[in-house]
Amino acid sequence: MCRWLAYSGSPVLLEDLLYKPQNSLVVQGQHSHLGATTTNGDGFGVGWYGAYDTPGLFRSTEPVWNDRNLRELCAHAQAARVFAHIRASTGSAVQQTNCHPFRHDRWLWMHNGALVGFRTMKRDLAMAVDADLFADIEGSTDSEMFFFLALTFGLREDPPAGVARAVALVEDVGRRHGIEFAVQMTVATTDGDTTWAFRYSSEGRSRSLFQSTDVSTLRHQYPDNPVLHELSDDTRLVVSEPLGDLQGAWHEVPESSYVVVHGGDDEVHPFTPVLP
Amino acid sequence: MCRWLAYSGSPVLLEDLLYKPQNSLVVQGQHSHLGATTTNGDGFGVGWYGAYDTPGLFRSTEPVWNDRNLRELCAHAQAARVFAHIRASTGSAVQQTNCHPFRHDRWLWMHNGALVGFRTMKRDLAMAVDADLFADIEGSTDSEMFFFLALTFGLREDPPAGVARAVALVEDVGRRHGIEFAVQMTVATTDGDTTWAFRYSSEGRSRSLFQSTDVSTLRHQYPDNPVLHELSDDTRLVVSEPLGDLQGAWHEVPESSYVVVHGGDDEVHPFTPVLP
Amino acid sequence: MCRWLAYSGSPVLLEDLLYKPQNSLVVQGQHSHLGATTTNGDGFGVGWYGAYDTPGLFRSTEPVWNDRNLRELCAHAQAARVFAHIRASTGSAVQQTNCHPFRHDRWLWMHNGALVGFRTMKRDLAMAVDADLFADIEGSTDSEMFFFLALTFGLREDPPAGVARAVALVEDVGRRHGIEFAVQMTVATTDGDTTWAFRYSSEGRSRSLFQSTDVSTLRHQYPDNPVLHELSDDTRLVVSEPLGDLQGAWHEVPESSYVVVHGGDDEVHPFTPVLP
Amino acid sequence: MCRWLAYSGSPVLLEDLLYKPQNSLVVQGQHSHLGATTTNGDGFGVGWYGAYDTPGLFRSTEPVWNDRNLRELCAHAQAARVFAHIRASTGSAVQQTNCHPFRHDRWLWMHNGALVGFRTMKRDLAMAVDADLFADIEGSTDSEMFFFLALTFGLREDPPAGVARAVALVEDVGRRHGIEFAVQMTVATTDGDTTWAFRYSSEGRSRSLFQSTDVSTLRHQYPDNPVLHELSDDTRLVVSEPLGDLQGAWHEVPESSYVVVHGGDDEVHPFTPVLP
Repeated sequence: MCRWLAYSGSPVLLEDLLYKPQNSLVVQGQHSHLGATTTNGDGFGVGWYGAYDTPGLFRSTEPVWNDRNLRELCAHAQAARVFAHIRASTGSAVQQTNCHPFRHDRWLWMHNGALVGFRTMKRDLAMAVDADLFADIEGSTDSEMFFFLALTFGLREDPPAGVARAVALVEDVGRRHGIEFAVQMTVATTDGDTTWAFRYSSEGRSRSLFQSTDVSTLRHQYPDNPVLHELSDDTRLVVSEPLGDLQGAWHEVPESSYVVVHGGDDEVHPFTPVLP
Repeated sequence: MCRWLAYSGSPVLLEDLLYKPQNSLVVQGQHSHLGATTTNGDGFGVGWYGAYDTPGLFRSTEPVWNDRNLRELCAHAQAARVFAHIRASTGSAVQQTNCHPFRHDRWLWMHNGALVGFRTMKRDLAMAVDADLFADIEGSTDSEMFFFLALTFGLREDPPAGVARAVALVEDVGRRHGIEFAVQMTVATTDGDTTWAFRYSSEGRSRSLFQSTDVSTLRHQYPDNPVLHELSDDTRLVVSEPLGDLQGAWHEVPESSYVVVHGGDDEVHPFTPVLP
Repeated sequence: MCRWLAYSGSPVLLEDLLYKPQNSLVVQGQHSHLGATTTNGDGFGVGWYGAYDTPGLFRSTEPVWNDRNLRELCAHAQAARVFAHIRASTGSAVQQTNCHPFRHDRWLWMHNGALVGFRTMKRDLAMAVDADLFADIEGSTDSEMFFFLALTFGLREDPPAGVARAVALVEDVGRRHGIEFAVQMTVATTDGDTTWAFRYSSEGRSRSLFQSTDVSTLRHQYPDNPVLHELSDDTRLVVSEPLGDLQGAWHEVPESSYVVVHGGDDEVHPFTPVLP
Repeated sequence: MCRWLAYSGSPVLLEDLLYKPQNSLVVQGQHSHLGATTTNGDGFGVGWYGAYDTPGLFRSTEPVWNDRNLRELCAHAQAARVFAHIRASTGSAVQQTNCHPFRHDRWLWMHNGALVGFRTMKRDLAMAVDADLFADIEGSTDSEMFFFLALTFGLREDPPAGVARAVALVEDVGRRHGIEFAVQMTVATTDGDTTWAFRYSSEGRSRSLFQSTDVSTLRHQYPDNPVLHELSDDTRLVVSEPLGDLQGAWHEVPESSYVVVHGGDDEVHPFTPVLP
């Protein structure tokens, strides 16, 4: 049910990020190891922050392993912050407006998981979205609705709080409809300067999520590895599953927690839903 | 801003209906005469009633003049009732779920026009849709929302009343948001047995709409025309613009009226919005 | 590297054939058991013989498990002979003209395998295609080239001979370019009345191929199975892999052989390439 | 039958080039003024030279006015040389591999016009393509074949000579097949440093082609025009039709001639086919 990666650090050629790794996102499109499905061929998307106000956003319903235009774009674009996602639909239509990441002004959002029983909850959730934001919803996914709830509840001012309130609201609506464990998530969101990544599920059994080990630590561990010497010290990746199998390069993000990545710092904090 | 046709009568090969006429819907895709735009290349759709419970529905974002699969389907499918539509978007995404006709159980719906200021009205309109129907909305068009409002207000029991109430509601919501003339429509809807076609605009300046003259009348007028002899007496077409230029074969549907086509009968009635 | 099925018998609803079986072609799109790849998401195609001169052909680059129009077509089309194929590209572009089955007049052709070293052989093979047929080649696959070579060498008059000559020519061209084992195939072809299915590889290690056991035999074996009672006696399927796991319902087509299916008869013959 | 533009000069944001002008290529997609067809909705392509070895190439079968990914790419990519093309098919399939520009190593090529009677000539032309290049032909258009003939006859060493020989060969093959006027062209080609644009037809009635007037000349003519002050002196555009209606900004490229654009220089020379 989807795989994603969130990169920040020195400007990187998108091709190096999305195509080169041994278990790249493109490879995961057909053979993911830790996803709910091995195939994630229901579309993909890439958001990247360049020299302009809002991030670029390339989304397509083609399976990621086939899309030539994505390959071309990646061979010619560099960015210091990149969000990329491959989709395995949990029911809603396969269309460009249902591909992640979703964008609102400078914000990007992507999600692996589901709002369980979304059809049943959909109207109540839609009504909870801020009136000024409602018409910006373009697609029909639970993931996009989740984004708009987070925006409604303060994502732009205090992202962890916005997400905590959105999650609590969904769980509350769920309970009122007899859905016991409504939220299943790993989520990443960014404003272009900081990235927040969340791992939480109402039932406590979330999809996989990993973050990269500090690069300078890895250089000590692997003094002869040339790739590590090319990476800047503030390189950070948060990923659904590791992009390669270098021992010690990845450590799991715990259940019910979130990571804040800003420049070379990353901190892990506990995550708890809080009703708005 | 879109063109459509609604056929009923003896089973007809879809290819004869959609490709053969001089000013066929496929031709209108690139060169419509009476539409708001000459090009209608933002997708198309065909709904047809065959031998099964619900109508078949083929929709695509490819320009209608290019789609080979449509050509193949039409060369191999016959139906006694056919709805076909070519789209020129008024702002919402070009995606399959935004192509007409829209389907709900046995019902089909298509629209040429707009709900003016839809972005502003969208939330209020969405909240007026019946709670049990809300989650069935798949796309983001005003046309689909209009369909769901009509369904909410009794389309399935009394189609003209359902549409009259939906129109009145939209005009009312519009006025509350400072939109003077909110509804622009020609609409066709059917349950597979009867077709209702509407022509109305809040401002009184609707898109073009024509119906075909009774075939037996045309046979008298053109005793040597072989095509007319092949058509059955109950052949009826309601169209955005004539499919050919045979004099007397088409007459305009008046403003603020609707046509009921059932078997070989068609009756024109005045149409007035009525608040629900 | 692709999976396919060839059906003949009483008219069947395409949906029953393509969607209902436990290991249907749609399921094999994401999880084939015996294919070279588990995912076959690089497009699909369906050819079917109805009441018209040439077979209908629906091909799309969408992964087969996502395509709604295919679902609709299948729910509304019946045919007595059906060819269906899901593609995993061996290098050439993912585009509609590269999806199987390929069609030429009343003939359909589909292939699982490869012409090894096709890039190297391509020009020589192209020049061996009959001058009157050359301009009908629309795509860039080895499979389509193979079809046109078979047409050149007499497929329409004597299918096994046409294929035998085409295979021999490809192997001969291959040897001249230093390619030891040039042909890898299971192929199915039909003129709408008879189906020929081939299993052969230059190296003797072909992709999987099975044919269905005689239905009346199966009825004896499983007297309580309701599906078997609905099938007509002349139902025949030749498939890349079994559509279900009913014991005794499928038996493998041997290496270096071909099956002729005509009405209720099917015969297996040895297959040997013969230079033209 | 297609429209294109070839830009060179200071790095420009692709969006300013493709979307901003009054009669931009995106506008020409639906309403070209001087093209053989008003609609050019059968796909598009953009090639651009950035900081890497080979040019980037984005091609799509979506009508250019709908493609969001193109918009995104253009908003985030700058280049000093850009080729862009919108397609109206003259018969071959609408697919990505049939969209211009075509690329071979660092070379790009685009064409407006046709090789008349291409189906008849196709095999003879294919045989004239260099054996080492043949397998690189991906699509089925006359335009791509024309490119490969030019490559065969020395495009990479002496572009005008390569094109002259290719044209002469096509005309010669045409005559042998009873085609009197086989070549209809405006063509643009570049290696990333120089652009050559050709206007020639066997019958002497070519599609429209214009080049931009020297920018410093225009600044004298329009001292108050702010856009002109932003353009660098070596800005050069060769276009199928003017992007705007500023008097004196565009002058027609004569029949039977070609333009060489290198840095700030552009020279017009007569063009004559020469048999290889």
